[in-house]
Amino acid sequence: MDELNYTMLFDFYELTMGNGYYLSGMHQKTVYFDLFFREVPDGGGFAIAAGLEQIIDYIERLHFDKKDIEYFRSKGCFDEQFLRWLKYFRFTGDIWAVPEGTPVFPGEPVITVRAPAVEAQLIETYLLLAFNHQSLIATKANRIVRAAQGRPVLEFGSRRAQGPDAAIIGARAAYIGGCAGTACTISDQLFGVPAGGTMAHSWVQMFDTEYDAFKTYCEIYPDNAVLLVDTYNTLKSGVPNAIKAIKEVLVPKGITSFGIRMDSGDISYLSKQARKMLDEAGLQNCKIVASNALDERLISDLLMQGACVDTFGVGERLITAKSSPVFGAVYKLAAVENEEGKIIPKIKISENTAKITTPHFKKVYRLYEKDSGKAIADQICVYDEVIDDTQPLTIFDPMAVWKTKTLTDYTAQELLVPIFKRGKLVYKKPELKEIREYCAEQIELQWDEVKRFENPHEYYVDLSERLWVIKRELLNDAAK
Amino acid sequence: MDELNYTMLFDFYELTMGNGYYLSGMHQKTVYFDLFFREVPDGGGFAIAAGLEQIIDYIERLHFDKKDIEYFRSKGCFDEQFLRWLKYFRFTGDIWAVPEGTPVFPGEPVITVRAPAVEAQLIETYLLLAFNHQSLIATKANRIVRAAQGRPVLEFGSRRAQGPDAAIIGARAAYIGGCAGTACTISDQLFGVPAGGTMAHSWVQMFDTEYDAFKTYCEIYPDNAVLLVDTYNTLKSGVPNAIKAIKEVLVPKGITSFGIRMDSGDISYLSKQARKMLDEAGLQNCKIVASNALDERLISDLLMQGACVDTFGVGERLITAKSSPVFGAVYKLAAVENEEGKIIPKIKISENTAKITTPHFKKVYRLYEKDSGKAIADQICVYDEVIDDTQPLTIFDPMAVWKTKTLTDYTAQELLVPIFKRGKLVYKKPELKEIREYCAEQIELQWDEVKRFENPHEYYVDLSERLWVIKRELLNDAAK
Repeated sequence: MDELNYTMLFDFYELTMGNGYYLSGMHQKTVYFDLFFREVPDGGGFAIAAGLEQIIDYIERLHFDKKDIEYFRSKGCFDEQFLRWLKYFRFTGDIWAVPEGTPVFPGEPVITVRAPAVEAQLIETYLLLAFNHQSLIATKANRIVRAAQGRPVLEFGSRRAQGPDAAIIGARAAYIGGCAGTACTISDQLFGVPAGGTMAHSWVQMFDTEYDAFKTYCEIYPDNAVLLVDTYNTLKSGVPNAIKAIKEVLVPKGITSFGIRMDSGDISYLSKQARKMLDEAGLQNCKIVASNALDERLISDLLMQGACVDTFGVGERLITAKSSPVFGAVYKLAAVENEEGKIIPKIKISENTAKITTPHFKKVYRLYEKDSGKAIADQICVYDEVIDDTQPLTIFDPMAVWKTKTLTDYTAQELLVPIFKRGKLVYKKPELKEIREYCAEQIELQWDEVKRFENPHEYYVDLSERLWVIKRELLNDAAK
Repeated sequence: MDELNYTMLFDFYELTMGNGYYLSGMHQKTVYFDLFFREVPDGGGFAIAAGLEQIIDYIERLHFDKKDIEYFRSKGCFDEQFLRWLKYFRFTGDIWAVPEGTPVFPGEPVITVRAPAVEAQLIETYLLLAFNHQSLIATKANRIVRAAQGRPVLEFGSRRAQGPDAAIIGARAAYIGGCAGTACTISDQLFGVPAGGTMAHSWVQMFDTEYDAFKTYCEIYPDNAVLLVDTYNTLKSGVPNAIKAIKEVLVPKGITSFGIRMDSGDISYLSKQARKMLDEAGLQNCKIVASNALDERLISDLLMQGACVDTFGVGERLITAKSSPVFGAVYKLAAVENEEGKIIPKIKISENTAKITTPHFKKVYRLYEKDSGKAIADQICVYDEVIDDTQPLTIFDPMAVWKTKTLTDYTAQELLVPIFKRGKLVYKKPELKEIREYCAEQIELQWDEVKRFENPHEYYVDLSERLWVIKRELLNDAAK
């Protein structure tokens, strides 16, 4: 599983272009690509960057096997010298990226690649795919976790995921976003996402009676009994049988940690009734787990109605990000080095102004208010600009340049960190738990207004004066 | 890539139940599970079954490695004898399934498993995941392909797919559903889905002028030049530069096959204008490829407006099935054998009547009208019932039993075929191309009314009289 080589997972045009660059003598030309996105899924105020670990693994394994070259040859459109050259193909460039778990915003580079043209072009699909998928799920999971207001959220969606990886790596991304665990066993084995689970309806059906099923389970798993109460009738049989089994098997042993799970029906009504029945039976410490096509909106609604749920299990709507299942990051050429090594900024124009790219080799600063520690704005600069945060800084909205703001008590921190230098990994991959903690900390640094689900405050992503002038000049040139 | 073992991709509760069955002496009990779905995505009239090939590969590789057993031991909740037993765990049961590419309907078993309890339970997640994902994409692709009314549809979505598998296997499913090809190179290499592609905006930006970029491309790929015309301005520069390059490089060589691609802006307007410009330049045979967040609704709309598009490239909305990204098949216990080998039907009740399962070990017949060859209805029967299609057959709606219909000139064909017998593969996996052709043929056998996008006719999925009585009796018993 962890030896996967995804080199062949690229869009065919990346290689037709590669062959073309090779034949045009442009394949060693140094180019700069930015990976960025234009919209946060679900209309949210921020996204959570994820997928870097998989990108690192991919880059480190990047090479073509003999059978890959044979396959290319069979297509009949590639130059034989180019195919020979591909045998020695490795990634030799530089990559900067935002660490996983960082809140990120539309329009700013989250990954920047500087590499020979063929290399930078060929890695496009995998970089996008890994970043898009995991950021999508981490972002969605975080919305759901925030809606649950401190109650644990468990990821239960493997069976509805879009393919094996969507289940396996999806559970990883959900954990980064704040989920407490998963049902997906292999995600625990491979990544250390805590996996758990107890019983399905089939367990209950396998026994002559529901009570037998519960009693047997309590006997086998006294320390981890969560009884599924909705196989026949939740309130008439499920909860009473669960109470009976818990009181007969677990309570006499002095066990105080157990629960019931409901997976259908009106969770608000059923959980309140079940809570009452459990409390009346003296089982105040019995937890109620609820699962049934939940997401952040349903959870918010349930809690507003006073549903007595201690833990949420969330399946298909998390693992597919159902309400907004596409994370639309793009990968665009930002600059090219000429023969003298000078960086020539490049722009992609569009009739849709939001689709016009920001040219040049860039860096991004995140600016924090000293007092509160909260993030105020991100500023995109030319690569060699330095923000001195002991000096006042005037920022302005690039879409409305008359809107300015002068910052004084602030700190500036670079958002992207070096990952590869000349093809060598220079970044220490953090543990998954560290990523999850870092993510929670970073989200704390965002204002509540940015975290709102509906119409969140639009966080400022500004350009430096120098970068803005470069962009304007390229736009003017193109309009000539 | 093709040596993947997904045994560990299961929901944790499948093993806690497995261990429980083992300790209760029930692990060798023969059980019957059905895999079926309740709703067609996008409100469509039918779904297309896919994913069986991956399920077969999974079942054939099913086993636990030493490190898997070690992982289980580390969880501290499994019996040591059970773990030793797991070392020799293989699939020894029977599986019946609907062949890939078959149109299928809500409520009918599409896969039936008969196996010892632990085996049948453990394969739940992967069976659901593989069937759900590929059927989702095949079904969506088929909607898009039908909307394109004979124009080729190419799958372009890898970069927005939900993980590597979603891209790779997604392209396979899209091909089954009728797509003509993909951009995803590895899907060609692994499955033979024809991959192709020409250039991205970066190619155009890498050259000093758009014309240079087009000219160079035509020189390198005279037989496969599709020029991307929207990097700067589609009608003012892109199309004129493409015309110039094609006329200067390709036309003199006698080449007549080439095209342009547009990836942004108003495709209807731009394609009509571009068509006019191309025709006026004498390039009537120049094809127009369009791509830009398309799906079946947008394509239908574009064609209604007379857009001049010859080929559609469809990305994110196909590869994630954006408008309806969850295929909700479930896997439910249908029967259990008692000590004497008698099959005891089992039912799962729900307050939501649509969620009540159909009990027993079953088979499904598809009934065709002899005259037209079209499918009339599916009938679910008890496993040992046989429909003699030389005799009249009265079918009835199980949700409204007074609605009956007597068939005379019909043929009956079993829908599910044997895949595994006592753990041995007894099914010959068809080639991907055969599956795609079979799918197209089978869809031809559906009435247009069932194929409608909006409010399609609801195809009849009925129960035999005998099965209906069994279900009613179990419901009556449960209500006591």
